[in-house]
Amino acid sequence: MPNQTGSSFSSNIIPIIAGTIVALSLFWAFRPIITFTFTSPNTTTTFNTGVNTYNIFSGPTISGHEFNHTHDPPEPTFYDDPDLTYTINNPIKNWDEKRREWLWLHPSFIPGIEKRVMLVTGSQTGPCHNPVGDHLLLRFFKNKVDYCRIHGYDIIYNNLLFHPKMFTYWAKIPSVRATMLAHPEAEWIMWADADAVFTDMDFKIPLQRYKNHNFVVHGWPDLIYKNKSWTGLNAGVFLIRNSQWAFDFMDVWSGMGPQTPNYEKWGEILRETCKDKTKPESDDQTGLVYLLLKEKEKWGDKIYIEDGYYLEGYWKEILGKLERITEKYNGVMKSERGLRRRHAEKVRGYSALWEAYLEGEGWRRPFMTHFTGCQPCSGTHNGLYTRQSCLDAMEKVLNFVDN
Amino acid sequence: MPNQTGSSFSSNIIPIIAGTIVALSLFWAFRPIITFTFTSPNTTTTFNTGVNTYNIFSGPTISGHEFNHTHDPPEPTFYDDPDLTYTINNPIKNWDEKRREWLWLHPSFIPGIEKRVMLVTGSQTGPCHNPVGDHLLLRFFKNKVDYCRIHGYDIIYNNLLFHPKMFTYWAKIPSVRATMLAHPEAEWIMWADADAVFTDMDFKIPLQRYKNHNFVVHGWPDLIYKNKSWTGLNAGVFLIRNSQWAFDFMDVWSGMGPQTPNYEKWGEILRETCKDKTKPESDDQTGLVYLLLKEKEKWGDKIYIEDGYYLEGYWKEILGKLERITEKYNGVMKSERGLRRRHAEKVRGYSALWEAYLEGEGWRRPFMTHFTGCQPCSGTHNGLYTRQSCLDAMEKVLNFVDN
Repeated sequence: MPNQTGSSFSSNIIPIIAGTIVALSLFWAFRPIITFTFTSPNTTTTFNTGVNTYNIFSGPTISGHEFNHTHDPPEPTFYDDPDLTYTINNPIKNWDEKRREWLWLHPSFIPGIEKRVMLVTGSQTGPCHNPVGDHLLLRFFKNKVDYCRIHGYDIIYNNLLFHPKMFTYWAKIPSVRATMLAHPEAEWIMWADADAVFTDMDFKIPLQRYKNHNFVVHGWPDLIYKNKSWTGLNAGVFLIRNSQWAFDFMDVWSGMGPQTPNYEKWGEILRETCKDKTKPESDDQTGLVYLLLKEKEKWGDKIYIEDGYYLEGYWKEILGKLERITEKYNGVMKSERGLRRRHAEKVRGYSALWEAYLEGEGWRRPFMTHFTGCQPCSGTHNGLYTRQSCLDAMEKVLNFVDN
Repeated sequence: MPNQTGSSFSSNIIPIIAGTIVALSLFWAFRPIITFTFTSPNTTTTFNTGVNTYNIFSGPTISGHEFNHTHDPPEPTFYDDPDLTYTINNPIKNWDEKRREWLWLHPSFIPGIEKRVMLVTGSQTGPCHNPVGDHLLLRFFKNKVDYCRIHGYDIIYNNLLFHPKMFTYWAKIPSVRATMLAHPEAEWIMWADADAVFTDMDFKIPLQRYKNHNFVVHGWPDLIYKNKSWTGLNAGVFLIRNSQWAFDFMDVWSGMGPQTPNYEKWGEILRETCKDKTKPESDDQTGLVYLLLKEKEKWGDKIYIEDGYYLEGYWKEILGKLERITEKYNGVMKSERGLRRRHAEKVRGYSALWEAYLEGEGWRRPFMTHFTGCQPCSGTHNGLYTRQSCLDAMEKVLNFVDN
């Protein structure tokens, strides 16, 4: 008899090795998931309602569902740089690398990052001059909190002045900048003026449309490039990508502001560029038009002028349409049973079904409605509208959203 | 020679089978993760900053990180029950089963559920009587939004009256109830009065402490069970578990409210039970004490009276301590370099380090500070304090949090 032990060993070992290699390869392919799942502290396979306990998964739960808030490795990041300040006078360099490094050290924030939006809004620090002003600001803030809760966006309300001289509309730039630094996990920062409200709670911003851009603003290219109009776009709502490009852009943009020695000069330049500019002083909106016109390669090519939906909508233009829109939506819901179905707030599975009705139609709910010129807080409204017409419009629009 | 093919086949097959079994077992153990990852629409292995693209993982990314908002299977859930209403008069039955069924059909909401908290707060619908009232409500709301953003809680601000007769403090019950129905994905609902603020942004509610309870409120057991005092607890802040127990409890609790025919009678009963009750009418707080005293087995045993930290803290008690607390915290930060380290807002890895200093000490920041009796909105403050002392205290506390 041949050496049975010898030959059975050598003839067994290869298949065992082969099987083990298969097993190990599988294990290696899933290593990141495994590592992630096993190192997260709260791995559980039970689902406890407090009344009953159920085993849902036969294996480890995807505890990687949550951010790891307590993990902060000792390796230094940009936060450890003593020169880092939140103030606007210190330009940031190499932000893309710094952010990438931070994310690599805090990987729980990476999944889903390309769609992560942080909404920033705010108002003055003290109480409003206008008696009902704060009440309106409260309702507008609630509106934004609702939209963000439904769509999983973070929101921050800023009422501190980051730079003492960058008042009113200029204050948004240091706000956005500080938010980028404090939230490297956010890919997009969305600025929305305090007096801009969400009037379509279901609408999801089509971020994939902006994958080659770093800034998105509502406007009309012809009004900007041909008419050189200061209202060719509206700077009350915009998206800006958390990037070195954004820091560079904001440095240049804010360079036209009241905290700079060139403020007066910029007022002249902007009035010269946009002949229809009404107010004398340099403002952020005309500044934005200026940069699109004069520095197209550097900035313009990365700025998306969105005129496909109301990323920002002028309230006077929208007000008259609301009744017809409500009728149309009610009509669709009457005819389409699936759209009448109730659901949890966090489940919004019907956009595809709605799109079939809304595509190409002119009665889609405006995404955002902006009460430009109404100034609910200071009360110094644009002479074009009476204070009462502003208040009535706000009431009407807020009720439109609530229903 | 023996049949080589025959014997090598049979002697090879077993190890191959063994190896395959190992491989398949591994595969089976991770099947939920695999299934979950592969069926989620946005599987990606690249991380795109908009400037550069990096491959992070060698295998599938944990795209299960996000909730699946668009998945709503056709199988009916409690939402499809035409008898479902959000109003308080229709009791809910079998909620635990209904919720579990909904979760099973929307499994992306299951991971992490045991720690998922939804904060509910609110105020009256119209503007405040008191001039600075809305400004204060806005600051208090911002405070809550900040805390929730940091800790990943959802928040809803309710300013609609769910039941026309359930005014002031009674309005919280229908608010909480409606939120439970609209948010089956939330395990805990936290109610916080509009005039309660978070004064320790780092503190995480120790939910594991309440795993055998369904309701958590700040109070002192002796003051409740021995003294039968109506201030033995404070109903301005509480946690309630999204459960059938909670619906049953709220039915009984709200049964003492102004919308019921027994409202007057309950006023008498509650005054009889808690001799120190000051106001004549039936109120939710004394009602809660009553249920703890009179129905201990049914409700009391599931209600956790928390006196270990300021789940709710009386502002007058806290005000005088703030300066010392700030000094102590500054002292610790001076001596402990690790605690001076700056970090992203979403990374709070230092609680363990802080605990070493705070454990057992009396100068921990109060978790929440509640301006009971100040009534910033209506202005009809408790005769014990002047309006100015309330306003000064609020300003001091809000500044304490901001710093």
